[in-house]
Amino acid sequence: MTTIDAWVAASKKSKLTREQIDLGPIGAEEVEVAVEHCGICHSDLSVLNDDWGVSSYPAVLGHEAVGRVTAVGSAAKGLKVGQRVGIGWNSGSCMHCRPCKSGKNQLCSQAQPTIIGHRGGFASHMRAHWAWTIPLPENLNVAESGPLLCGGITVFNPIAMYAQPTSSVGIVGIGGLGHMGVKFAAAYGCEVTAFTSSESKFDEARSFGATNVVSSRDSAAISQLAGKLDLLIVTVNVSLDWPALLSALAPNGRLHVVGAVLEPMSIPALPLIFGQKSISGSPTGSPVDMEVMLEFAARHNITPQTEHYPMSQINEAFERLESGKARYRIILDSDFN
Amino acid sequence: MTTIDAWVAASKKSKLTREQIDLGPIGAEEVEVAVEHCGICHSDLSVLNDDWGVSSYPAVLGHEAVGRVTAVGSAAKGLKVGQRVGIGWNSGSCMHCRPCKSGKNQLCSQAQPTIIGHRGGFASHMRAHWAWTIPLPENLNVAESGPLLCGGITVFNPIAMYAQPTSSVGIVGIGGLGHMGVKFAAAYGCEVTAFTSSESKFDEARSFGATNVVSSRDSAAISQLAGKLDLLIVTVNVSLDWPALLSALAPNGRLHVVGAVLEPMSIPALPLIFGQKSISGSPTGSPVDMEVMLEFAARHNITPQTEHYPMSQINEAFERLESGKARYRIILDSDFN
Repeated sequence: MTTIDAWVAASKKSKLTREQIDLGPIGAEEVEVAVEHCGICHSDLSVLNDDWGVSSYPAVLGHEAVGRVTAVGSAAKGLKVGQRVGIGWNSGSCMHCRPCKSGKNQLCSQAQPTIIGHRGGFASHMRAHWAWTIPLPENLNVAESGPLLCGGITVFNPIAMYAQPTSSVGIVGIGGLGHMGVKFAAAYGCEVTAFTSSESKFDEARSFGATNVVSSRDSAAISQLAGKLDLLIVTVNVSLDWPALLSALAPNGRLHVVGAVLEPMSIPALPLIFGQKSISGSPTGSPVDMEVMLEFAARHNITPQTEHYPMSQINEAFERLESGKARYRIILDSDFN
Repeated sequence: MTTIDAWVAASKKSKLTREQIDLGPIGAEEVEVAVEHCGICHSDLSVLNDDWGVSSYPAVLGHEAVGRVTAVGSAAKGLKVGQRVGIGWNSGSCMHCRPCKSGKNQLCSQAQPTIIGHRGGFASHMRAHWAWTIPLPENLNVAESGPLLCGGITVFNPIAMYAQPTSSVGIVGIGGLGHMGVKFAAAYGCEVTAFTSSESKFDEARSFGATNVVSSRDSAAISQLAGKLDLLIVTVNVSLDWPALLSALAPNGRLHVVGAVLEPMSIPALPLIFGQKSISGSPTGSPVDMEVMLEFAARHNITPQTEHYPMSQINEAFERLESGKARYRIILDSDFN
């Protein structure tokens, strides 16, 4: 299959139009996948709008794709035609730098984002390096799993790296990433405090597994948490009251950002020093991290809460995402045929 | 001994005057020590000047003290009269909070700083809780070891927590703390890059064990380090070019502050996220951390490079400290008799 159907952004902020694209012959290390479902992530919107100044057009967005392998390059390893797989934020990495050889491929400086200078999953087919084409566990709900491949691994990885089941974990922002974060942290066995600015999400946050829900606008409620949280994961991309959040951390606690906050964070050094606290960030995860996350999600029956649109309504779906009303992740179901 | 001789700051920024103080009966859990030598740390100056707004007067400064036990309270454990000990930044903690019970006493919210609301080591005698009165190894050079008890443990602890012998470690600021940091990191087996704004310290930094020395004012030299350092310890208390230092970190690298930078740090989130980097801080160390550090220092013959003053010249010594010319740590030798 060298000619595919795809939804294409011709330029910055343009509407998406259906087009045919000739991908040329498959690369030796590539795998081709017939996309069945693909989530929309807020970073699809950021790349569409060139918010980060790194977009290239025409762009085929979509990086939370699941589907079946339709072709494998001559040097692709470990995958076979017909197998169910997922592709997330990255579609390749150099495979020979130190991070790649250490299995931390997500830290490769040459990592290839799926939707920047590469064609993503809002298409009939897409391609990725075999190492970044992740086999799905048998018992995963495929139609609901696309968002795990980017949003899911992004919030799962800090929990896997830094939380214990005995930890008290806070999740700031109950949106696409945050609601999965609450589910993952609860399944991990943690005490979970959800922070949201929207009171309408309080009950749902509890249903996802939050032990406590706090309004992120209620300074008094946040101050009552002083010294309580071992790990606080920030999933929003707006500036917050960083000193107040730092004070909610227990000694040795960590504030971890996965939301692409563009404004520099103003961080007081003394609370870091006296509380031995950390501030950190992380991008998605490695292929092995993603496999581990998918196995954990399947075992605990964790999928995002979603709204589905047929892919032909992709522009309406982007409007819904932009409205901030989606509960909590939108998945596009392929309808090219 | 309830009446001691001490050098006292009557008020903020005052000259120190010799006075006699009645300490009253020794507490059940206290140990009394005849001070032989006591280092001057920059934080003695900060407390003298009330830079942090937490000082109380009259103040007896000095928190890098070594000497011999002269009395032990009825409930003090593990120490005996005549034993050589050291006392650092803290002289007590509650012993029953979670950090204390976990052996992380330095994170106790009730930890008692030696020189704030407590009488320090610029005196003939001082007292501390038995747990914070640290036995000195036999083979340590006692006259040169005072600064290990505060400055030393402060730079040793992040190395012990976060470095491997295979790590590439940067030390920013080659002063009292930093020059000990270079020695510790070199003895740890690390590749050590020293950052200093003073070219006059380049050769000495190499003699302490630095593999590379970089001018902290040379942006081009810093940019050549891009992606190289696993751990970067900041010992200065002035604002730096944080984004440039973050870019010098390897993937998964950590920028760790132990200098009390008062101005908020302006930290861009995206490098944290994409490089999976951390920013953190820590205060001194626990009593066990201090014991381990002293054993390591004794085994590797690590002591600070010092200038000695008799304690009766304490005001001259403070002037020398304030001038920034001390190489690299000042020790006051007791001369009360």
